[in-house]
Order: sequence, then structure tokens, then C-alpha cells
Amino acid sequence: MELLNTVTVEEAKNKIREAFGGFSLKQENISILDAVGRYLAKDIIVPIDVPGFDRSTVDGYAVISKDTFGASESVPGFLKYKDQIEMGKKADVTVRTGNCYYVPTGGMLPEGCDSVVMIEYTEVLGNDICIQRPVAPGENVLKKGEDLKRGDIIFKKGHKLRPQDIGMLAGIGTINIDVYEKLRVSIISTGDELVSPTEDLKLGQIKDMNTYSLSAASIEDGCNVIERTIVKDHRDLLKNKIEECVKNSHIVLISGGSSMGNKDFTKDVINDIGSPGVFIHGVSVKPGKPTIVGKIGTTALFGLPGQPVSALVIYKIFVSFLINNIYYNEEVINQYIEGEISVNIPSAPGREHYVMVNIREEIDKTVIEPVYGKSGMLSMMAKARGYVKIKTNQEGLIKGEKVRVFLF
Amino acid sequence: MELLNTVTVEEAKNKIREAFGGFSLKQENISILDAVGRYLAKDIIVPIDVPGFDRSTVDGYAVISKDTFGASESVPGFLKYKDQIEMGKKADVTVRTGNCYYVPTGGMLPEGCDSVVMIEYTEVLGNDICIQRPVAPGENVLKKGEDLKRGDIIFKKGHKLRPQDIGMLAGIGTINIDVYEKLRVSIISTGDELVSPTEDLKLGQIKDMNTYSLSAASIEDGCNVIERTIVKDHRDLLKNKIEECVKNSHIVLISGGSSMGNKDFTKDVINDIGSPGVFIHGVSVKPGKPTIVGKIGTTALFGLPGQPVSALVIYKIFVSFLINNIYYNEEVINQYIEGEISVNIPSAPGREHYVMVNIREEIDKTVIEPVYGKSGMLSMMAKARGYVKIKTNQEGLIKGEKVRVFLF
Repeated sequence: MELLNTVTVEEAKNKIREAFGGFSLKQENISILDAVGRYLAKDIIVPIDVPGFDRSTVDGYAVISKDTFGASESVPGFLKYKDQIEMGKKADVTVRTGNCYYVPTGGMLPEGCDSVVMIEYTEVLGNDICIQRPVAPGENVLKKGEDLKRGDIIFKKGHKLRPQDIGMLAGIGTINIDVYEKLRVSIISTGDELVSPTEDLKLGQIKDMNTYSLSAASIEDGCNVIERTIVKDHRDLLKNKIEECVKNSHIVLISGGSSMGNKDFTKDVINDIGSPGVFIHGVSVKPGKPTIVGKIGTTALFGLPGQPVSALVIYKIFVSFLINNIYYNEEVINQYIEGEISVNIPSAPGREHYVMVNIREEIDKTVIEPVYGKSGMLSMMAKARGYVKIKTNQEGLIKGEKVRVFLF
Repeated sequence: MELLNTVTVEEAKNKIREAFGGFSLKQENISILDAVGRYLAKDIIVPIDVPGFDRSTVDGYAVISKDTFGASESVPGFLKYKDQIEMGKKADVTVRTGNCYYVPTGGMLPEGCDSVVMIEYTEVLGNDICIQRPVAPGENVLKKGEDLKRGDIIFKKGHKLRPQDIGMLAGIGTINIDVYEKLRVSIISTGDELVSPTEDLKLGQIKDMNTYSLSAASIEDGCNVIERTIVKDHRDLLKNKIEECVKNSHIVLISGGSSMGNKDFTKDVINDIGSPGVFIHGVSVKPGKPTIVGKIGTTALFGLPGQPVSALVIYKIFVSFLINNIYYNEEVINQYIEGEISVNIPSAPGREHYVMVNIREEIDKTVIEPVYGKSGMLSMMAKARGYVKIKTNQEGLIKGEKVRVFLF
């Protein structure tokens, strides 16, 4: 048997980054209402000062701070109450020494004042307001442009939009934005044993899962799945289908057929179709060693394992990585759950090892338990809440060791 | 001023759970291709055995294990090679003592054999296969139904579907499933100062953000936003709008107007419209103390702070909690990033305190830095990557203390 010329996970990522740097994406202009999860194609520049006027941050009285100096509960100051500022209206008056105006939180400050005394530290006495605490200049005031200045950049190109960002964009009046087009992904499952989930099984056959799980994962990553199809283990059929997909797709995922068996055509077929062809075949990772990564023209091609759990693990490690890279999104931070591993888990050093696990909360600790199963068991995928990564230079995990689970 | 009768966050959650237990939701039957993020309305019962036949988990030779006992590299065993089993085809032959058949990974085992010798431990010698290692009965075999048995429950009612679950459902041939209808949410922003983001600002006015950020957050939580609207601070206008929304919505969110000021009508208006009315007004939490929770008929109503950061924090704490509760989803585990807080952060005990933070990776540690800003600053929301929770009984955080950041 020919041997795979494996690279480490880090080496593979570097090669992928190099191969697809400067990926050219179209842009589209969309409403912010449809923009959660999309990636900005341009920096967002603030078009207005926020706030657009000096504003009170509390309910209270707009004053000249000097007028309050020395005030206390026992020796309060007195200011003449003039009027109240209406919320949402221009404050068309001026505060003069000895006077004050009521301002609600968020209300506009009148001319002349420099601070606001919170209503909690005042009392109304006829036409006067009794001030029980001094304020410093600027206290309880948000100055025009203090929050955001016209011309500031609030979000950079590549930023993946979150719900709060949509609110921010509304707040600066930017309701249509330029985002990158969704990446077009085609997904091919190969194997003579595969039939569509709607078909009845004959002995020896199984129902295709990978076009479904990989499609759902790609959509979650902000892509558009334009093709999902099963191809029998036949070189020409596979070649024709990949060739067709390459024409319309940014990314082509091919599950199955990436090993070294006599029906594993994926590598040769990719190299036949165009250049530069396959540049990774074999990664030091478990599961997923026979992973293939190639490029034809500008299209990225991945040969993923046929085994559904492995296919999805490799998707997470490399395909999600490429997608973020293409979108120039440099902010990816993976959250995790920390806990103690419940048993020893041996692992051969020299490769990264992904272990499917479950999480159990005990009174004083979080216990992480591996999900056991034979190779190829689908139920592991349903049972596992996430995975633990054993690094290349680690020989395994010791029972009780702290580990991080990434939800799946 | 009237004082709020505050409850703790935990008390509030218990009250919400009680008030909306047994929420009645319609079900709908949808394709698994549209089902990521939806909640199952019924347990999923496996309709077929998986695998449907005894299957090899490796590329190798199907044998009777007894025939391999004693085999080693120096003293190999020899078995007559009969034929190969085709992938995806019924294995219509029988292994007899002294014989073997080639089986690919996932291929069906012939009658008579009980194990598979991996190809790595064999050699071809003319018509014979030379066996260099013994196998135990059952080795490298996945028995019929060993992965999933017909009648097993793989996903429970309330489970929120992930990409891999879609693959699983395809694998058992269940391509249409019953999920709960999407919750219908109406969102009202109140305030005389608010204008639509598309309108030009006059002095004193600001652009509405909350209908946008709360809408995006609700959609992310699997809801359908049926109404987004701004209402001026006018009691009858607010009453009419809430009354209208209650008729069609499972959840009504009202931001602004939940404090105790003279234009904070939300509580009274809810109590006017119907019963049981408001059952929480005031939660010991910062930000978000004046939070309101009420019920009219079966509809849940939330009075959220007008300040956008606070509104979203309270949304996350209580509205997301209710949504998961309504869907019977008991699996919620929040992931986090752990790091060291960069400064002392004082906090008044007796309330939960949510601090907006950023994350900075240093060589040997993750540093968590609070995002500073005056009350009401929108830019804090754009700048923060997540939040740290200071518990009710904590007096604050000490510089260098380990904290958990929940991404936002």
C-alpha cells in the first residue's frame, strides 16, 4: 500500500491559508435585518456624532456645577426651578447662575449648564430645588460625540455580525450594509453502499448522512449549499460531478473515497481535473487521517472521511477554518466548558486526537466522560455533546486532568 | 418615589418557570433540511436497525476467528482466498473453515464468519492469504442493530437540533419531523426621543436600536418576530399597541418605560389590559433593575430597560431562559472563556452584576478587561466581546482572579 505523506494540523492550516489568501469575493448590499451571521465587506464608519447633543445620563436637574459646590444634606444649596426639558425635544433655554431645569435620562441639556444633579439628592421646596450634594463639571453628562464620533470605525471588514451589532448599526442610522456574498458550497457523498434517506435499504446498503450533516454545518457557517448529491464509486462519474461542481462553487466537499483503497479515486480525480490540484493528502489527526485538500482554479476542494463523525470533525478543523479565513474574520474565539476527565485516555503522540465526550455536572465539579463506540458508530454523534482535543505532543489524558470541551 | 419590590435573579427565574409551565405550543412537520435550531415536539424513535446487517469496520478479510488462533508474523496462518464482497451489495456467500473473503470497510459480512483480519496484518501469496495476527470472535465487526436498535429513542422532545443531528436523522431515514412552532415575538420600543433609524435626527432625538437588537436576538433563539414598532410615551397609545400584540404573540418585549418615572407606564398598562398581570417588578441585577415580567392570558410580557446594553443583558438572562423553558429544552449548557480579570471590580453584594468585557490573549494567559463607558454609551456594546457575571453574594472581583466570560 502507498503511504500517506501526512502533515500536522498546524502545517495543514498554514498551507490552506497560503493557498487561499486573497480569495476574491463579491459583495452585496443587504438590510441589517437580514445581516446576523454575515461578514462585513467594508469597515463601518460612523456617519453621525452619538449622541448628537449633550445629554443627561440620569433623571435630575441641569445646573452650573459651581452653584452646587459646598452643598450637603445638612447645609443644602437652593436653585430656582425654571422648567422641565421634554424628552426628545430640543432644550431651547439657557441655565443661568442660580437656576436649574429638570432633565430626564437621555434628555438634551440646555445651554449654560455643565452637569446634572441626580433627583435622589434633591428635594422640591415650592419653586426651589434643594440640592443636597455637589456635582463636578461634566458629572452625569454624556457630551456630543463622546460615545461615537463621526468618522470613527466601529466594525472592521470581516467582522461577523452579532445581534447587538445590528442594534448599533440601527443606532447610527446605517440600515443597509455591504457584506460578502455567501460562499457557494457543493457536497458530494461517494460510496456504492449509499442510498438516499428516502429509499428503502437493501442488504449491504446504508442511508447517506454526510450530505445532510455537512450541509447543515455549512449553512451554520454562513454558506449557501447549492448541491447535495450521492455519487457511486466510479471514477468517471465522480470526475464529471466534481468538474461540474468546481465551475459553480467556492468550496467542494467530497466525503468518502479519500483513503488509499482501490476505489478511493478522489485524489487522482482532483489532480486530473485541473491545477494546482491536491496539496495535502494525509493529516496527523485522529479521526480523519486520510484528509485531502486541493485547489482547482480558485475553488477549494476537501476530501473528507466517509465515516460521519470523522467527516464532521475534519469539517470543523479545516473547512470552518478556511471559511473564516476567506471572510477575513480574525476574531474567532472558541468557547468551551472546563471539567475533569473521568478516565485515562491513551493517545499516540505525533498526532492530534479528537475524543467525543459528554458532560455531567456533579455538586462540586464538572465531569467529562468519553462517549465509547466502535469505529463508524453513528450513535456516538447523537450522544456526544462535544469533543476534547488531545494535542500532538501529549501522550493522552490522565483521569482527573482538567480538559476543555468544545460543544459540537 | 415609589420603591421597587425587587427579587433575586434566581427567584425571578423560578417565578417565570411557574408562570409559564405547561405552555401550549402547536407542532409542525418539517423537512430535516430546515430543522437546525428547531426544537423537537416528539421523541425520535429509531425505525430501523443500524447497521441493518453485520458489517466490517476495517478493510480486511472475513474469517472464522478460530482459523487465525496462533498465527504470528514468524508463524503465519494460511487461508484460501475465495472472492471479494462488493460494497453496497448483499454478501451472498458463506465462509467455511480454511477460507476467507475480502471485505471493505462498511461492507457486509458473509454468513459463517465471526471476525475480520485487518489488511495490514496479511499478505497475498498466490491464492492464499497469509494471516500474521490472530483475531478474537467479533473483532472488527459491527453487528446488526449494535449501533442503534429499532425502537431506541435517539433524541428527546425539546432537543434543539444541531447539524450532526440532521445527519443522524438522515441515517435512520427520518426526513420529516415534528417540531414546535416558532414562538411569535412582538417588540415595542417606547420613548418620545426615539425615531426610526431611517429618519433624520432633530436635536434631542435618538435612533431606535432596541427593536433591531432584540429582534436579531429573538431570531437567533429560534423565534419569529411578527412586529417591531416604536411607541411614543403616551399611555393610551402604549396600551392599544400592547393589547394588539398580546392577541397574536407568545412573547411581547417592551423596552423603555419600566422604571418609576412619571412616563413609565408599562407596569400599569399591563395590569390594565388583563390578568394575572405583572408578577415581577424589579430584579436585583445590574444593569436592569427595573425589569418587569407579566402575563396576560397565556402571553408573556417583559418590560426591559430602554438602555440598549441593559435591554440585551436582561433579554439574555430572562427571555432566553423562558424560550428554552417553553420548548422543554433542558440541555442548555453555556460555554465560556476563562481568564484573569485585569483590574479590581467592586460590586455591591445583594445583586448580580454583569460587566461588559474584552478578551486579550497573552503568551501564557488570557486577560479579561472590562469595557469602560458612561451609562447609556452604545459603543460599549460594539466593543465588548462578552460579559462576566459577579454573583449576588460576591463583593466584586480582585485583579488576577479567574473569571468566566460568556460571549455576547
